Amino acid sequence: MSDMLPKLFFVHFQPTNFVAEQDGKIVGFVTGFVSQTFPDEAYIHFVGVDPNYRKSGLARALYEKFFITVLNLGCHTVRCVTSPVNKDSIAFHRSLGFSVESNDSEKTIDGISVFEGYDGEGEDRILFYRALGKMENA
Amino acid sequence: MSDMLPKLFFVHFQPTNFVAEQDGKIVGFVTGFVSQTFPDEAYIHFVGVDPNYRKSGLARALYEKFFITVLNLGCHTVRCVTSPVNKDSIAFHRSLGFSVESNDSEKTIDGISVFEGYDGEGEDRILFYRALGKMENA
Repeated sequence: MSDMLPKLFFVHFQPTNFVAEQDGKIVGFVTGFVSQTFPDEAYIHFVGVDPNYRKSGLARALYEKFFITVLNLGCHTVRCVTSPVNKDSIAFHRSLGFSVESNDSEKTIDGISVFEGYDGEGEDRILFYRALGKMENA
Repeated sequence: MSDMLPKLFFVHFQPTNFVAEQDGKIVGFVTGFVSQTFPDEAYIHFVGVDPNYRKSGLARALYEKFFITVLNLGCHTVRCVTSPVNKDSIAFHRSLGFSVESNDSEKTIDGISVFEGYDGEGEDRILFYRALGKMENA
């Protein structure tokens, strides 16, 4: 599973990388960083959970750990990107309070704003954002 | 060519992304960031130069722009990673004053220390580093 964690992130973004372990084995991780263009924003690049630990709330717990950490680093917004075909990811982010950034070109898939070719030709993306605030301070 | 520049870097690491343009067309770019684990280190992730502009000193100029920028951001070391099969890249980095990090496992290819499986199975890498200092201040 650790092969899925890009080395570059593991080395240079340690303050905002978290792993979940069970019996000494990594069963989940989240990796992201504080934006260097917008220092009050953080970006979640990837979350991975061992298939045997899906639906356990682990991804949510990893995201919440990330939220609290970047709030303490001065961030007030978290952003991430997903593919319109990844319905589980869309539902997950919505359940965590993420909003969808609206797209001026007005392309939508299933009623959700989509950025066409955002990650290259044919690679449409949904852009999520979520304000950090009271909940994480509690 | 701009398709080669990962969107994530373009959005969130603008202070350390540089493009070279010719007649309104992007002919080269360098992308990297300040390490968030080691704030006095910077990492160059990718440099790309249009094949028509190779051997023109453009990659070197882009690296030098990056060096000066991250020095001003408080960095004293620049790191990057390349594949042992990429002889041009190895020669380029050496000519720019990069050193090769030595590897405790003592695996070498053509006399150069190599980190076996650094970026996953079968993905050996050479790790370069270079101190920033007087030259960039001049």
